[in-house]
Amino acid sequence: MEKKKNISMAVIKRLPKYHRYLNELMNNDVDRISSKELSEKIGFTASQIRQDLNCFGDFGQQGYGYNVRELYNQISSILGLNKKYNTIIVGAGNIGQAIANYKFDRLGFNLIGIFDANPKLIGIKIRDVGIQDIDELKTFLVENSVDIAFICVPRVNAQKVSNELVVNGVKAIWNFAPVDLDVPEDVTVENVHLSESLLTLVYLLNQNEEK
Amino acid sequence: MEKKKNISMAVIKRLPKYHRYLNELMNNDVDRISSKELSEKIGFTASQIRQDLNCFGDFGQQGYGYNVRELYNQISSILGLNKKYNTIIVGAGNIGQAIANYKFDRLGFNLIGIFDANPKLIGIKIRDVGIQDIDELKTFLVENSVDIAFICVPRVNAQKVSNELVVNGVKAIWNFAPVDLDVPEDVTVENVHLSESLLTLVYLLNQNEEK
Repeated sequence: MEKKKNISMAVIKRLPKYHRYLNELMNNDVDRISSKELSEKIGFTASQIRQDLNCFGDFGQQGYGYNVRELYNQISSILGLNKKYNTIIVGAGNIGQAIANYKFDRLGFNLIGIFDANPKLIGIKIRDVGIQDIDELKTFLVENSVDIAFICVPRVNAQKVSNELVVNGVKAIWNFAPVDLDVPEDVTVENVHLSESLLTLVYLLNQNEEK
Repeated sequence: MEKKKNISMAVIKRLPKYHRYLNELMNNDVDRISSKELSEKIGFTASQIRQDLNCFGDFGQQGYGYNVRELYNQISSILGLNKKYNTIIVGAGNIGQAIANYKFDRLGFNLIGIFDANPKLIGIKIRDVGIQDIDELKTFLVENSVDIAFICVPRVNAQKVSNELVVNGVKAIWNFAPVDLDVPEDVTVENVHLSESLLTLVYLLNQNEEK
């Protein structure tokens, strides 16, 4: 049913945004919405929206628009949110702790382990998950099924951690370290490079001021 | 000297990455590098690199390659890092505190204020900057020149905070709240939407597993 061939990265990157807006609409008890109304909210053109959603199947009805809950469920399912994911955090510094406190469980992400090398942190619990010694990581990966690892260690340790995760079967890494990880093709990495985002902002700020 | 016309967003987004790699090369005492060698490190093609850098001026010499420090300085200057920026953080929850602990001062960002509505947080110092009551924000903005504000408040409060920042002259917002802010054209916003990044990862993980 779903047409998943040759979906461009640009479309994929927009899916979570649809997901967020549809969730908001549901929370505001909106039952249905036209691509035009959705366009006004989300900022993509109506034809862009129709095109995007057509990549994945036939949503929406002429003259009716989209059923919000149905579209939300479909996009959730396309994103893979109809499953649960076991996650771990490696690196319980500032950013690791912040991520641990995020309520990603709402979206189906179960945090099952947190690891750090700092003896002072070991044993501390964040949302019921105790921080373990990073030396336990390998055993933990062998004994537990981990779907996604969040790397929040300093730059110099990130590749080493990544190697250990990959060799023990982790297929998805959410990387907060300011480094591009070298991983095999069957491993997916999504980077959150904060400094790069801030530098982009500064560049655009200066361009805007020159106008 | 600099050709800044019609630089595509894709090129702009790559600049901070060049900046990071050149910084690493400098730290490893590499004096010069060819576009081919840089390509192997950074993962863009050599012709892409030459094209990108040509957007901004004439870098590199045939047969010599790029002088690493010179190119780093030039890109720093293009990004606007030859100036200092006063920054504030609004919202001192987990992510706000994590950001406050980041050493962005190294890049020229001075954190001069942190604000939160939670009375329990007020007065606590993070890296020598005390958390102030958010009710003080307006006065602070009037009395201080703030270049960039980092919004780390919950979703429901983000637009209100943004409005207050904008009305008091802030021209750049680094937004961590999962909401698209409505700002005038002369205000630059860069979003870090963590949930969206995680959902993209999950989608790609599932696609990879289907292969």
